[in-house]
Amino acid sequence: MSSRTAININVDMGESLGNYAFGHDEALIDLVPTVNVACGFHAGDPDVMRHTVSMAVERGVEIGAHVGLPDVLGFGRRRMDLRPEQLRDYTVYQVGALDAFVRSAGARLTHVKPHGALYSMVAERGDLARALVDAVSEIELRLALIAGGVATAEYAAERGIAATGEGYVDLDYNDNAMPVIEPKKLARDPEETARRALRLAKNARAISAESGAELHVEVPTICLHSDAPNAVDAALAVRRALERGGVSIVGLATAMASG
Amino acid sequence: MSSRTAININVDMGESLGNYAFGHDEALIDLVPTVNVACGFHAGDPDVMRHTVSMAVERGVEIGAHVGLPDVLGFGRRRMDLRPEQLRDYTVYQVGALDAFVRSAGARLTHVKPHGALYSMVAERGDLARALVDAVSEIELRLALIAGGVATAEYAAERGIAATGEGYVDLDYNDNAMPVIEPKKLARDPEETARRALRLAKNARAISAESGAELHVEVPTICLHSDAPNAVDAALAVRRALERGGVSIVGLATAMASG
Amino acid sequence: MSSRTAININVDMGESLGNYAFGHDEALIDLVPTVNVACGFHAGDPDVMRHTVSMAVERGVEIGAHVGLPDVLGFGRRRMDLRPEQLRDYTVYQVGALDAFVRSAGARLTHVKPHGALYSMVAERGDLARALVDAVSEIELRLALIAGGVATAEYAAERGIAATGEGYVDLDYNDNAMPVIEPKKLARDPEETARRALRLAKNARAISAESGAELHVEVPTICLHSDAPNAVDAALAVRRALERGGVSIVGLATAMASG
Amino acid sequence: MSSRTAININVDMGESLGNYAFGHDEALIDLVPTVNVACGFHAGDPDVMRHTVSMAVERGVEIGAHVGLPDVLGFGRRRMDLRPEQLRDYTVYQVGALDAFVRSAGARLTHVKPHGALYSMVAERGDLARALVDAVSEIELRLALIAGGVATAEYAAERGIAATGEGYVDLDYNDNAMPVIEPKKLARDPEETARRALRLAKNARAISAESGAELHVEVPTICLHSDAPNAVDAALAVRRALERGGVSIVGLATAMASG
Repeated sequence: MSSRTAININVDMGESLGNYAFGHDEALIDLVPTVNVACGFHAGDPDVMRHTVSMAVERGVEIGAHVGLPDVLGFGRRRMDLRPEQLRDYTVYQVGALDAFVRSAGARLTHVKPHGALYSMVAERGDLARALVDAVSEIELRLALIAGGVATAEYAAERGIAATGEGYVDLDYNDNAMPVIEPKKLARDPEETARRALRLAKNARAISAESGAELHVEVPTICLHSDAPNAVDAALAVRRALERGGVSIVGLATAMASG
Repeated sequence: MSSRTAININVDMGESLGNYAFGHDEALIDLVPTVNVACGFHAGDPDVMRHTVSMAVERGVEIGAHVGLPDVLGFGRRRMDLRPEQLRDYTVYQVGALDAFVRSAGARLTHVKPHGALYSMVAERGDLARALVDAVSEIELRLALIAGGVATAEYAAERGIAATGEGYVDLDYNDNAMPVIEPKKLARDPEETARRALRLAKNARAISAESGAELHVEVPTICLHSDAPNAVDAALAVRRALERGGVSIVGLATAMASG
Repeated sequence: MSSRTAININVDMGESLGNYAFGHDEALIDLVPTVNVACGFHAGDPDVMRHTVSMAVERGVEIGAHVGLPDVLGFGRRRMDLRPEQLRDYTVYQVGALDAFVRSAGARLTHVKPHGALYSMVAERGDLARALVDAVSEIELRLALIAGGVATAEYAAERGIAATGEGYVDLDYNDNAMPVIEPKKLARDPEETARRALRLAKNARAISAESGAELHVEVPTICLHSDAPNAVDAALAVRRALERGGVSIVGLATAMASG
Repeated sequence: MSSRTAININVDMGESLGNYAFGHDEALIDLVPTVNVACGFHAGDPDVMRHTVSMAVERGVEIGAHVGLPDVLGFGRRRMDLRPEQLRDYTVYQVGALDAFVRSAGARLTHVKPHGALYSMVAERGDLARALVDAVSEIELRLALIAGGVATAEYAAERGIAATGEGYVDLDYNDNAMPVIEPKKLARDPEETARRALRLAKNARAISAESGAELHVEVPTICLHSDAPNAVDAALAVRRALERGGVSIVGLATAMASG
């Protein structure tokens, strides 16, 4: 097992909607190399997308499409029984919409990541994993894919799509090494979050909150949640811990290329 | 006043939604050179968009983005008091989403046309006309614009966007040369519709249903509505009348270039 | 096993939405004693609700609330992972909204029936069955409940709610005696549909399309689907078959009271 | 001109949506006699409605239905060109939905108030004022109506509906004595807000922010906005000023009955 000297941090952003503010985007965007921008299905709207893309481009932050289920009421955190072709088409639609803002801002989209319940669904169902990979493949923007599951990895490799899962440090894991989704993100101790980040980067290990068992989680990117009440403190603590531990924080492609 | 020897016909399509079927797309698409595809705001959904784009690409039919107000309940036929930057962002979003399907199908998008109440709003308010032109301009896909109004024409010219209004033959005109929107499209006599089409093409004239006055309407493209109960008969009659009258039916750019 | 001399027929109606027409409501409503009206979550809108209620009240037809998942795109036919309290609250909301139209029309609501995927979810998950029963109970309108599953029957009995499952004759059954939902309703032979109705009423039997096995299905009410292409022919055939077979078509409460 | 000895304060509440929190409901509800609860069209959802109703019933606070335009993206603050029968039906729907939660909680609904742009539309268009009054009338719950405009007052009187406009103290007035809607509510000096409240109650006067002109605004109820950043401070200051000025804060019906 390799100890990483470089890792990526990605944060979900742009989840405000009309008059509703959400998350700590303005503060967090200065702390991370990579953001995933909501595309109007589970959260976000065209005005928010433009604003978020603009903030990212000004700072040279990488932008991914955070595609979600069409369920604002449930914030994309409730499973919906989509057919694979629906997932494929919802993905193409959302990626295309966000990409128009990114291109207008003179930048280029780097990756796609499914949001919330969709992330879990893709990790579990091979037909949905294939549909997501198909969508990313047919868009022909050479996008990477942050999505978990064996099927995703296999189909992505077949299609020449660079794919990886992500690690969690501000959520608990269950014994299946899946994150335990919180309907509303709770505050966690930033130092504990930072320790988890360092353990992931250096040892490729996480601890199951269910049984206390050690889990093998080897990932080039860590997801931080912008809606945690103390998201900024957590991000600062994680950055500090990684830097002190000799792990540099890098872009997604660089982290995926490094062991 | 020039008598046209070539004119374009554009039809709004892809307005089905989930389980709801709408219009006579399958039959009409074989009869026209150009379609405007709904983008999920006033009608349409990602599956319908893919299907409609696929039908168009198979036949070599030109595809435009039919951008609408975010109002499925009102089918985009009720005015909403958008701010200009909202219209700009809603347009970028919708065009980007549709463009992803068009590119995936190996084709390219040719134009943008606002739908229903948005078409009227843009024709009347300079700030919205400018916002629409700004959106089309920043997308950098060299799209033409089908939209009416003096302000639209002026701003489009400034920005180097090819823009034109469209003519109506299956709707009535009022004395301001604006179409009278029908909440539900009614059947019209196909032969009368065809006579109107020929009058538009040959004489650049329409008749106001309000006063009977002759209106000057000089346009390179005629809009036919796919939700008229006899939309297919109307399209056949229009085609026949134009061909007999020596007016050929051509693509949008060709019609705009011809006098 | 009792041979019925009276049975109810219920039909889902009011599933049009804005500019989208759906089903054969105008013709079917003269053929059945009981309708379930969509409440704006999976289909329907306030104008359609008023219109449908008005048609029903004019004819003395019983009106139930057809509560659905908040998913117009999926027409309520895709499972969504609701929490029980969400289902309870969505039910209270939808029933209240419809009830206001029914009271305004001088009538009273008679029952509640979950739609599509929600019907299946309630039949399978005890927590959701309990949430639905809780909602119907707290509304205090003495509504009956058309919903399947052992848990539903038990909780409803505890709370003093009259509850029953329904039988299907224009859909296939699988070996678990559950209907096989069709994304788009297909046409069936009306005479075969009628034979199935008579078999249900006289013998409490249905045939599994999976294995051909005989299923025991003892229900006081049969559901007919208004979106079948030949829904009116099917309803006429079913009526004729039942009447010839000596089974009278009666209101829901009467059918539930009769053995 | 009468100096009031009693006045009502009403606050819009329940405008959270799914994962999106909004306003300072928990703190404000202890400070006012009357709340208007969003009904899911411009804001709010069934879970939020239940929670807000429950808070109000526990405290004996009066509950009104805050009916809005079907536009979550615009938070009901953008005009939409509704037909009168649409407004009537949207009102019946929303009032019915909220009323079901209120009845379930063992209380009764007291009034209806249109939200945001709809408040302005009703104040300006006689056909919409009539549609709103018709809806309130046909619901037969003996609800009062908080809505402005001469037409509203006249139609309401004809139909036996108690109706009144409301006064604003945390928004500016223009010269037409209409409030200037802020897309996002800004903080105001609580003491200035309190002075405005006292001026309204004692002198029936407000000051136009446009010209500085004195406006005659005689109303039995003051609206405070829960989304002002310092909404709680403003409410406390207003209460204090009114009490010191000898104006007691009372329920809506009492305030309407008092001169």
